[in-house]
Amino acid sequence: MKITYQGETGAYGEMAAYKFFSDKTTVEPLPCKSFRDVFESVKTGTVPNGVIPIENSIEGSVNQNYDHFLEYDLKVCGEVAVKLAHVLIVNPQTTFEDIKNVHSHPQALGQCRNYLEKHKWELYPEYDTAGSVKIIKEKQQQNTAAIASEKAADLYNMKIVARDIADNPSNYTRFLVLANKDAPPTGDDKTSIIFSAKHAPGTLYNALEEFASRNINLTRIESRPTKTTAWQYNFYIDFEGHQTEKRCTEALKAIEKHTTFIKILGSYPRVI
Amino acid sequence: MKITYQGETGAYGEMAAYKFFSDKTTVEPLPCKSFRDVFESVKTGTVPNGVIPIENSIEGSVNQNYDHFLEYDLKVCGEVAVKLAHVLIVNPQTTFEDIKNVHSHPQALGQCRNYLEKHKWELYPEYDTAGSVKIIKEKQQQNTAAIASEKAADLYNMKIVARDIADNPSNYTRFLVLANKDAPPTGDDKTSIIFSAKHAPGTLYNALEEFASRNINLTRIESRPTKTTAWQYNFYIDFEGHQTEKRCTEALKAIEKHTTFIKILGSYPRVI
Repeated sequence: MKITYQGETGAYGEMAAYKFFSDKTTVEPLPCKSFRDVFESVKTGTVPNGVIPIENSIEGSVNQNYDHFLEYDLKVCGEVAVKLAHVLIVNPQTTFEDIKNVHSHPQALGQCRNYLEKHKWELYPEYDTAGSVKIIKEKQQQNTAAIASEKAADLYNMKIVARDIADNPSNYTRFLVLANKDAPPTGDDKTSIIFSAKHAPGTLYNALEEFASRNINLTRIESRPTKTTAWQYNFYIDFEGHQTEKRCTEALKAIEKHTTFIKILGSYPRVI
Repeated sequence: MKITYQGETGAYGEMAAYKFFSDKTTVEPLPCKSFRDVFESVKTGTVPNGVIPIENSIEGSVNQNYDHFLEYDLKVCGEVAVKLAHVLIVNPQTTFEDIKNVHSHPQALGQCRNYLEKHKWELYPEYDTAGSVKIIKEKQQQNTAAIASEKAADLYNMKIVARDIADNPSNYTRFLVLANKDAPPTGDDKTSIIFSAKHAPGTLYNALEEFASRNINLTRIESRPTKTTAWQYNFYIDFEGHQTEKRCTEALKAIEKHTTFIKILGSYPRVI
């Protein structure tokens, strides 16, 4: 079961890929460079599934991936939550006192913001957590640390000088699994949609009413700029239920009158 | 009239500072290093006003500043929209063909994502747009460009090699003006609040109903993780009207029964 993720071996995306499939022995996670590459690989059918982070419990939404869903017509067929346990990683000869610079993915730097601000280190955003470990190892940087998982430290034979450095121990990232086809109902599902509300007072409220009046619980609402007209937004909503359930089908039909555009990203088994 | 902003001279925050005051001759914009420094300077009274970006029409919310509003008890006393016109800037000896790396603020890199992806340059996030021009000038980097305003190029005597590089010409950033006191009503105002909805189905919808039923138009809704409990959110709402208007006072009182926490950031003259 091939599944692609963004980052290097040891990245949290790789953990999400393993976690999604119950039979771990046959999982074959394939690293790729960017989130766009994950979407492209699934779109072209090179790989049947991909996994991308969509939100973190401290830093919030991964905006780039919300935006990719507009551009790519892929299905969401699953969700996975991964607990992040960031550690501070250095080359074997480096001590904690030597550290002047810290490299990691911007989301990981953000998740450790309070800890990092205390130490007054210079921060360098990288494309990936595990990738930042690889970089400081390859360049043999002695005044530099990387933030990534313990697994990444082990893989690259590097030294851990601090643990539990996130601002909150409850640090989870929610990943979505991409496919070219829908997932069947299981009885405990979620559905994700994007819509643009008509530009008139109260239309967002009227759209939400179609869910509330049918006792459909929303688990998430996010807005992103349309990018075409300033201060106009697309709304991303996750709600409980599968799109084939009667109340969901009715709500999805009913909100059309409040929206200028709607796209169903998919229904999938609810994990969180 | 002293007002502080994040970045170097020539930053878009400096333009926002000038734009906010009608009498430009007495404005004294003071640069500082981080958004946190802007909040701190106004909190301690070192400077009476500060200006911070809150959202961009292409890249969306500046999450860090949304989060700072939870921590600091400051008032929002105004909003300003600045049109961003990004140009690609190099040292005088560098040609377009020499470019291998591009430095800028992550928001500016995001606003030019399609343009940058076409050229396959390496991207380096910096703390500020104008600051990235300063850096490539000081280091005399010859294979490197910065993305910033034309004003920043002029200030540092650098060369412009491309204009209109944002993915959409409608590229605006909305700034909020911080103060220690409320702004009086003008008859055409907006109010910004933060609240946390009670954890039960439909509470966000019920909170929004308190505005809709009083014909109060929402201009913006944003959610951010609470950071204390995974998958719980604070909502940031902007609505039309001043908090001293009867319908607004009533709505603000009424939503208390749907929320566990509410904070009024301020009412201010509506610009956009």
